[in-house]
Amino acid sequence: MTVQERKRTRGGGRAGNARRGSTHAIQQMPWSQPVNIDRPTEPLSQDGVQAIHETAMRILEEIGIEFLNDEARRYLKDAGCTIEGENVRMDRDWVMEMVGKAPTEFTITPRNPKHRLTIGGRNMAFVNVSSPPNVMDLDRGRRIGDFESFKDFMKLTQYFNCIHVAGGYPVEPVDIHASIRHLDCLYEKLTLTDKVVHAYSLGPERVDDVIEMARIATGLSDEDFESEARLYTNINSSSPLKHDWPMLDGAMRFAKRGQPVIVTPFTLAGAMAPVTMPGAVAQSVAEALAAIALFQFIRPGVGCVMGSFTSNVDMKSGAPAFGTPEYVRATQMTGQMARFYGLPMRASNACAANAPDGQAMWESSNSLWAAVNSGVNVVYHAAGWLEGGLIASYEKFVMDCELLQQFQRYMAPEITATTAGDLAYDAIKEVGPTGHFFGTQHTQDRYETAFYSPFLSDWRNYEAWQEDGAVWTAERANRTWKAILAEYQPPAIDPAIDEELQAFVARRKEEGGAPTDF
Amino acid sequence: MTVQERKRTRGGGRAGNARRGSTHAIQQMPWSQPVNIDRPTEPLSQDGVQAIHETAMRILEEIGIEFLNDEARRYLKDAGCTIEGENVRMDRDWVMEMVGKAPTEFTITPRNPKHRLTIGGRNMAFVNVSSPPNVMDLDRGRRIGDFESFKDFMKLTQYFNCIHVAGGYPVEPVDIHASIRHLDCLYEKLTLTDKVVHAYSLGPERVDDVIEMARIATGLSDEDFESEARLYTNINSSSPLKHDWPMLDGAMRFAKRGQPVIVTPFTLAGAMAPVTMPGAVAQSVAEALAAIALFQFIRPGVGCVMGSFTSNVDMKSGAPAFGTPEYVRATQMTGQMARFYGLPMRASNACAANAPDGQAMWESSNSLWAAVNSGVNVVYHAAGWLEGGLIASYEKFVMDCELLQQFQRYMAPEITATTAGDLAYDAIKEVGPTGHFFGTQHTQDRYETAFYSPFLSDWRNYEAWQEDGAVWTAERANRTWKAILAEYQPPAIDPAIDEELQAFVARRKEEGGAPTDF
Repeated sequence: MTVQERKRTRGGGRAGNARRGSTHAIQQMPWSQPVNIDRPTEPLSQDGVQAIHETAMRILEEIGIEFLNDEARRYLKDAGCTIEGENVRMDRDWVMEMVGKAPTEFTITPRNPKHRLTIGGRNMAFVNVSSPPNVMDLDRGRRIGDFESFKDFMKLTQYFNCIHVAGGYPVEPVDIHASIRHLDCLYEKLTLTDKVVHAYSLGPERVDDVIEMARIATGLSDEDFESEARLYTNINSSSPLKHDWPMLDGAMRFAKRGQPVIVTPFTLAGAMAPVTMPGAVAQSVAEALAAIALFQFIRPGVGCVMGSFTSNVDMKSGAPAFGTPEYVRATQMTGQMARFYGLPMRASNACAANAPDGQAMWESSNSLWAAVNSGVNVVYHAAGWLEGGLIASYEKFVMDCELLQQFQRYMAPEITATTAGDLAYDAIKEVGPTGHFFGTQHTQDRYETAFYSPFLSDWRNYEAWQEDGAVWTAERANRTWKAILAEYQPPAIDPAIDEELQAFVARRKEEGGAPTDF
Repeated sequence: MTVQERKRTRGGGRAGNARRGSTHAIQQMPWSQPVNIDRPTEPLSQDGVQAIHETAMRILEEIGIEFLNDEARRYLKDAGCTIEGENVRMDRDWVMEMVGKAPTEFTITPRNPKHRLTIGGRNMAFVNVSSPPNVMDLDRGRRIGDFESFKDFMKLTQYFNCIHVAGGYPVEPVDIHASIRHLDCLYEKLTLTDKVVHAYSLGPERVDDVIEMARIATGLSDEDFESEARLYTNINSSSPLKHDWPMLDGAMRFAKRGQPVIVTPFTLAGAMAPVTMPGAVAQSVAEALAAIALFQFIRPGVGCVMGSFTSNVDMKSGAPAFGTPEYVRATQMTGQMARFYGLPMRASNACAANAPDGQAMWESSNSLWAAVNSGVNVVYHAAGWLEGGLIASYEKFVMDCELLQQFQRYMAPEITATTAGDLAYDAIKEVGPTGHFFGTQHTQDRYETAFYSPFLSDWRNYEAWQEDGAVWTAERANRTWKAILAEYQPPAIDPAIDEELQAFVARRKEEGGAPTDF
């Protein structure tokens, strides 16, 4: 489907924005960014935090990190680091000085300013599933990702108010050639959603293209665009102890333009990191700090986030495991370290399950509870992940959003407020030992908003559920995503901006897009 | 099946105890009682705790609780409480004085002293599913509970090391007449398991029978038996603000003999309690303290546990909901109150789902995380609950045990220890930027015990899972319980004690068992 065809098919949708809200596949909670009111769970003592810090510093000072990027090494040389080939060793004072320049919280403002996010502090943001090569639903089974499913997930990302960020590609659309994939994908992201978008650090041309497209989408001048953070990138180190060229190149481009960078080492304990979780965390922290120090040297004050992807492998099969007890503790320890360094933190809603079933949900619940009790700010893959990130699942996306909404509600301070009305002494006295609370004025005044109302959970008794077909959760989720896609309407966009985006995509395609070696 | 028939069929099993451990349906963690090392999540400020305390005290002082039991009211009159008909009002100083006599922790020693439990402090104990009228499995669907399924669940209860208590009947065996049901059930509980058992407070004859049977099972004299806590009962208030006759009668019998009592108000917000969670918690606390004060007056120092069953109803259907955000917060608030009063606390692994699917597991995960982050000591219905407690599910039992094991592992302090070996600096240096950790000595020394090893989770990649039949979690659990029941062996028991138990049951059956009105 060409841009022109897409333009035609979308005209009605765009014009039809006034109809939004007239139909509802589900009743969902309004947009809001949850503020985590819980004190984090901290398994490390202050000595334990110091011990991991000391280990991370020794890694940076004595072992060093490989920076496979000339420009990065030139910066680091200018900063006084010790360079030997690709190995860079850093003095701890310099690292701490640089990391100290990073803000503890910052905002990202997308083309719709109502969807501005605060990253850091006690704020949480939920990111859609990012980067699986495969897509799955109950009707069609697992298959290679394509552009249609990419767009479906973008629509789900926009639809659910509990999803705050359109992160990486929810699934790789391999039916689009890699040279122009970023153009088509960013066009869809920027028009099917109006939330904060991520862009991959996959080469200079792609990074410059997507930043320019994000700028066009805002309708701002270069200068106004760069006056604030508007989008972000996420880079992974190539653990152990290595940062690759394109990731560094892209992240430096982002940093130079004041756009935030999340640095997420992928430290599977027992594989790319020590088998002991504190060791894996120390290595992850060292890898993250090394890159963050570089970005702060290049652009002091640019938003940087310490990512955590420390989990364990199954020592029988070598397969990665997620949502495990060790994963939860690693996330909590990394949370302590991120707070120690004054950095916002990223983790994930990760699971290893191959189907949207019980295992998927207990692993996801463990990961989400870990995010909450570790003080995580950015929750990647918050909806839709299966098979350790190799599958984007339509049904899991919907099921995860039910959980995310519950966590949003869980953070509402009014649940535990203790005003006289909350304590309800008068209602208890009025009802006495023989009555029922439903009829009281106290209840009538509050019942519509007193409790979380699910869109997917079935709370009816067995008989009612049975009569209605005894539909299990994954099947209900299957119905829900279909209903959502049927009613989806894209967010409003100025037609002139849409045209400019399309023109940019068309021009860059004519120029051949980004270079590839195939 | 008569006791004599049972004796015959069991002879081989008992004699075959030496074979235990020779076959394994699953590889599970060893028996241990988890010690919760996490600091609890406390949504209430100290002022909030005081406000709920003040409300509870005003309920006890000004509104009063109905005690539908003459003996209880006589005790309370002797204690100086104000009695009007069945209403009892209590002075807060007296309540606090009585509650202050309850131990913050105590032990319960079953017939196998290796399964002794400490209740309170930071200790956790997991209780099997208790009291559903229905039983369900994937092969036979939902059906009314019977004695065969009762015994199956008792076998699962004994088999899983992560289940510490054989609580209430895991399912009501309605094919046994109510007059003798307690005799057959307790005989099975005491012989199919050797863990701490619960007995219902359902009338004097039943309570006396089961305490006597528990005594016989230990082989101890009356005096030696009562020198320690050996079993316990759990009573529910008839919310709002009422304690019924049989519950009080049974609990007082337990207390007099030094056997612990859990008091669990069933305060569904919006139905039997205020629609506001702090109000529902205040009412629950008042109902629990009223009974605990009575038991401490009767037997100072007897073990008492503050139970919580505060959740919300679905305001659309009136159906109870569990594992909700409001449930989690109510449990956390009750945890704060229990610590304020110095009492151990009970909550549950509750869910509203009708099938062992995704919803069941996210609701159970929420409930179990609530137990952990509220500092709960006794987790009822830890394995097997569905449909708000109306179904005991074979598959859910197995799935829940996978979660319970993960929580047991999560509590292992070694995961976050920071010795030099844990920090792994030398291993990181040895591997450097190009290696892999699997081959290192550091990994080889630790990999067998480094990570939690699941018995039900499938961590293989999609291809391997697919080739093996693409079996979803509930179906895997179905296979697991069948394998467990096939290999189950009862715990050792002295044949003389078994005979004495059987003789007791036979005699009491001849005498007609307990009186019933049908």
